[in-house]
Amino acid sequence: MITTLPLALVQLHPGEDATSNRSAAEAWMEQAMDPPGGNPRPRLLMLPEIWNAPYAAARFADYAEPVAEPGSQLAEGPSPSLAMVAQLARRHGVSVIAGSIPERGNDGRIYNTATVIDANGHLCSKHRKVHLFDVDVPGGIRFRESDSLTGGDRLTVLDGAGDPLGTGLAEPPGLGLLICYDIRFPELALLMQQQLGCSLIACPAAFNTTTGPRHWHLLMRARAVDTQCFLLACSSARPEGGQAYPSYGHSMVVDPWGTVVAEAGCGEQVLHAQLDFEQVALARQAIPTGQQRRHDVYQLTQV
Amino acid sequence: MITTLPLALVQLHPGEDATSNRSAAEAWMEQAMDPPGGNPRPRLLMLPEIWNAPYAAARFADYAEPVAEPGSQLAEGPSPSLAMVAQLARRHGVSVIAGSIPERGNDGRIYNTATVIDANGHLCSKHRKVHLFDVDVPGGIRFRESDSLTGGDRLTVLDGAGDPLGTGLAEPPGLGLLICYDIRFPELALLMQQQLGCSLIACPAAFNTTTGPRHWHLLMRARAVDTQCFLLACSSARPEGGQAYPSYGHSMVVDPWGTVVAEAGCGEQVLHAQLDFEQVALARQAIPTGQQRRHDVYQLTQV
Repeated sequence: MITTLPLALVQLHPGEDATSNRSAAEAWMEQAMDPPGGNPRPRLLMLPEIWNAPYAAARFADYAEPVAEPGSQLAEGPSPSLAMVAQLARRHGVSVIAGSIPERGNDGRIYNTATVIDANGHLCSKHRKVHLFDVDVPGGIRFRESDSLTGGDRLTVLDGAGDPLGTGLAEPPGLGLLICYDIRFPELALLMQQQLGCSLIACPAAFNTTTGPRHWHLLMRARAVDTQCFLLACSSARPEGGQAYPSYGHSMVVDPWGTVVAEAGCGEQVLHAQLDFEQVALARQAIPTGQQRRHDVYQLTQV
Repeated sequence: MITTLPLALVQLHPGEDATSNRSAAEAWMEQAMDPPGGNPRPRLLMLPEIWNAPYAAARFADYAEPVAEPGSQLAEGPSPSLAMVAQLARRHGVSVIAGSIPERGNDGRIYNTATVIDANGHLCSKHRKVHLFDVDVPGGIRFRESDSLTGGDRLTVLDGAGDPLGTGLAEPPGLGLLICYDIRFPELALLMQQQLGCSLIACPAAFNTTTGPRHWHLLMRARAVDTQCFLLACSSARPEGGQAYPSYGHSMVVDPWGTVVAEAGCGEQVLHAQLDFEQVALARQAIPTGQQRRHDVYQLTQV
């Protein structure tokens, strides 16, 4: 019986040219599908936040693409970035958590939107970043996503039933999607575990050299423990030179005990790991916080 | 204008004899009030979880004491442990977060109960541990507080108005009380910050050599960042020899950025620190998660 899921996180740095970004992401994913000796072939790939464009509030609109609704075939779709991913997914028979790209909505607004694409090139799930990254740390980072983006209005979970990710696992995991700053709001991850049955949370992200050293490991590991889920944190890579947004890197896979199973450095690279889903059941039996909630004292609800 | 609060956490190991435990705690607090050169005299002291008794589910009833209701004068009260603390508080003009002791309730049940005692010896606040420590980590710790304890049924906050702690601060902090395992449930700390105005959370605790290395720093720091509060985590000390409950130690003061400001080792000791409450405002301005909650997507409520 299959209990492990081999996967790969692609940590890349997108530049100014959309076509080059697409080609580079494709080349990295091709490389991820041909792992070095000892690593099994991934059944799931993951890209970081905003992998098709520079991470800059003033530029998102220039790179925005339409994103179809779940159920759509993407390989010939209107988004060149997602069409590339869908074609690669079909070519290799692999599922892809396609990080996020700026989405041009039917309402004309721009969203920061993550997608999951199955091995047939269909869109399984779509998450619009709920919490926009508006911060101003004196002496550190200043950023205002809300200058150009609109926040999503719902949490996003891909049910494991029917195994849309093609994991082959006897109990395919429910997958929760968060994007970067969403991780600072424990409510989302808690709802994903407590009410929506997730055992895997994916968080494409782009922390920076101010917030990364302070909070990257802390928050990703904390949400893994809060929910006793596996947590995938795929970051963009640190750029060379000082002009671009200084992504923190350090893409990670965290297990339900909060242990970092695999971690990247700062630069562009592929990070391979295997998730052993028996660890979810073991952690939840050992420290059964999921069943010890005091709903007579507090209640957390999805609106 | 006073903006800092000097305080001391007492990390001690209680043994079998209740009278000796009381005397030892008093001696440690006396020592804490006479800090080594360079440290100002504390305005607030803190004791760990179950500081008057061995931490053992089968023993709590033997050491349980009645605990009065907030507003009561404790110095001559029925709890010898809290009477000692109240007398010391009056003697030194210091407030004390008096860790927790087993409480024998009027209903005959036993609770794990934390208290706050002001410089006049009055009980300001009382928290009964809400989440009982029932875990079974194979190859590690097994413990069932629910074999002998009953959980509390409410969260506990001491309003800063009127400065009950005698901090002398222009904006005295609201203080939230958690006990040990409560820290694993983010809902409590989030409610304390979002709805009840806390900027200080105190968590007397007794993690162990299984859960401590995995989760002590992670969870205490995470709740500080989740809420942008100062967090005081006062642990019992590691016992010598192998029979007693293996407390993790490592009492800590964590600032609203998640930085560990002061940290103890494993053994008995006093940990001095100063809290600079300007950091609460700075952190909340820089990364304003408190104002960025999406109450249209999820709601967390106190029942």
